[in-house]
Amino acid sequence: MPDTIPEDSIGLVTPQTSHFDTPLILDCGRELPEYDLIYETYGKLNADHSNAVLICHALSSDHHAAGYHSMEDRKPGWWESCIGPGKPIDTNRFFVVCPNNLGGCKGSTGPTTPNPKTGKRYGPDFPIVTVGDWVRSQARLADLLGIERWAAVIGGSLGGMQALQWAIDFPERLSHSIIIAAAPKLSAQNIAFNEVARQAIMSDPDFHEGRYYEHDTVPRRGLMLARMLGHITYLSDESMRKKFGRELREGKINFGFDVEFQVESYLRYQGRSFVDRFDANTYLLMTKALDYFDPASCCNGDLAAALKPVQAHFLVVSFTSDWRFAPARSREIVKALTDGDNPVAYAEVEAHQGHDAFLMPIPQYIKLFGAYMNRVAEEIG
Amino acid sequence: MPDTIPEDSIGLVTPQTSHFDTPLILDCGRELPEYDLIYETYGKLNADHSNAVLICHALSSDHHAAGYHSMEDRKPGWWESCIGPGKPIDTNRFFVVCPNNLGGCKGSTGPTTPNPKTGKRYGPDFPIVTVGDWVRSQARLADLLGIERWAAVIGGSLGGMQALQWAIDFPERLSHSIIIAAAPKLSAQNIAFNEVARQAIMSDPDFHEGRYYEHDTVPRRGLMLARMLGHITYLSDESMRKKFGRELREGKINFGFDVEFQVESYLRYQGRSFVDRFDANTYLLMTKALDYFDPASCCNGDLAAALKPVQAHFLVVSFTSDWRFAPARSREIVKALTDGDNPVAYAEVEAHQGHDAFLMPIPQYIKLFGAYMNRVAEEIG
Repeated sequence: MPDTIPEDSIGLVTPQTSHFDTPLILDCGRELPEYDLIYETYGKLNADHSNAVLICHALSSDHHAAGYHSMEDRKPGWWESCIGPGKPIDTNRFFVVCPNNLGGCKGSTGPTTPNPKTGKRYGPDFPIVTVGDWVRSQARLADLLGIERWAAVIGGSLGGMQALQWAIDFPERLSHSIIIAAAPKLSAQNIAFNEVARQAIMSDPDFHEGRYYEHDTVPRRGLMLARMLGHITYLSDESMRKKFGRELREGKINFGFDVEFQVESYLRYQGRSFVDRFDANTYLLMTKALDYFDPASCCNGDLAAALKPVQAHFLVVSFTSDWRFAPARSREIVKALTDGDNPVAYAEVEAHQGHDAFLMPIPQYIKLFGAYMNRVAEEIG
Repeated sequence: MPDTIPEDSIGLVTPQTSHFDTPLILDCGRELPEYDLIYETYGKLNADHSNAVLICHALSSDHHAAGYHSMEDRKPGWWESCIGPGKPIDTNRFFVVCPNNLGGCKGSTGPTTPNPKTGKRYGPDFPIVTVGDWVRSQARLADLLGIERWAAVIGGSLGGMQALQWAIDFPERLSHSIIIAAAPKLSAQNIAFNEVARQAIMSDPDFHEGRYYEHDTVPRRGLMLARMLGHITYLSDESMRKKFGRELREGKINFGFDVEFQVESYLRYQGRSFVDRFDANTYLLMTKALDYFDPASCCNGDLAAALKPVQAHFLVVSFTSDWRFAPARSREIVKALTDGDNPVAYAEVEAHQGHDAFLMPIPQYIKLFGAYMNRVAEEIG
């Protein structure tokens, strides 16, 4: 817990929830008759509503992107390094909106919220949502907030995919799309990791085909395994070496199956603490949204063709040691954009932190991100 | 099943088992009072016993390295591509010995065999064995077979680690050490993958702390997950892309959690079939042997110092797309050897198959491996 909140933090923040009662038709063909979105906003919307930016979150994060919920919070929001006064997404200049996605477990309608038809939690009956569905639901939130056009839509990882989809689906509603540590679609290896995570959850006897709430349990083991595995893909081999090396927790080998190496201890801790703050059905949904994301599928795999409608300017950022979505994957997006003569800036940031680098205050990254956002702010005037 | 056995196969083979009743003191401090080793041999031992080569197996393989057990066998041994008449390990010239390691589940003493003290299966009471323990048990097998000195000790992956350990522990008992797709020790990331696999097995409610035999069950789910995860690390991103791409099994997205992408189908199949042929306690032991392997630990991490005693000549081979034990890891071995003025040949083979490449008939690999083994055979005369 911060004794005092740091000067460069947005400070104490409070989420808000909006209810939407117009049915939302989803890509899977089903509809959500009504739904809630929980979101946080930071900074002030200007008079002509031109300074709003949308933050899209990744697999396991949520609407709490910056600041603290109380003086007792041990940690700030997940993108505190990039959002706040004087930071790249400068809350003195921008009105920042960050919703929890549909299907989430932090307050937006999802598997853990009641199905209005039955009064019971949706659980596995919650429809599989796509990046396109999220973008449509976020557009309705924009309508509600009186935001006709975002100054920028910004996201890392799965969030970057939403920023890309926004540019395709609502070309007139954003000036800039900022896509960080993302890919235009998952590789077979990416899907394979997701599948192992899903199998870990779904084969847990406490999963009960997704109806574990009714059995008053949660698939702890499966969700823990999924998170441990995820963590390996978020870190680089090098960052793991720097962080843990082959260090032994007790200085010597014990010839047993308890924790021996520091990296084992770290992974088990990460796995365990995740179970207390995340829902297994939501995890399943998020991995499916990732697997399905493939905007080029409309056009026989031709991403440049899929990007024809876009009008936004783009910033694409990748990190050298990211092996989940390697720089080559970002360059695919850049190439498709340049093939279509779309304005795009691309930066490949030298970083040893792997995929997680997009969350870190890496000087080169913060500097170039800040410089780009400064131009976005200057355009607003 | 082969209608006829291919001409370049060693053909029908039969394993043998030898019993050892002198206790073996293990690195963990415990001893095995007696034990069996099952092994296969191919080719003929020459008059002066100088043409014997030892094949060391990797994590999930065994003594059945080449040939067929019966005309009904669907598949030959695991290294059929490299062992046989006219192949790199030419059975017309070499007497090839391949044992199943201690702790294994294919006939050598391990968790699934009875503990002579109790009459019940060892299960989790089987001691954790190390690469050094295996090498000592293999040296006893050499004694039994009348092999004073191996023409070569050869292995891929965990097998390559045994070939390295042999050169350190019994410098006078081998002329050549051939280390393929290996590493001088695991990285933190390698250990992390092993730890997720172990947690998958150990958290399976059917594991019963390793005493699942007594409960008449096996931790199927956990072992399946461990194997699925292993498979991802054996293949390269590129080989997965070539093999599966993002192809959908039914040609379209179904918005459900059944198998959709071909890669999911492949992984589930690999996981399921593994459960029928492998033991979970053995899997745990093998991952620990990998984690503990670190010959340089004797010398403050100085591998060149650890390699001081070696007298063998070395061939080290790596594969460009292997990310489990990348070429850089092989080069660490090569550097330590050259620092100590040990004779070493090194080849980095261009291959898209990832770690599994060491099992494949890749022309460049087969050619250089064969050329090296030809020199080994010529030395024998």
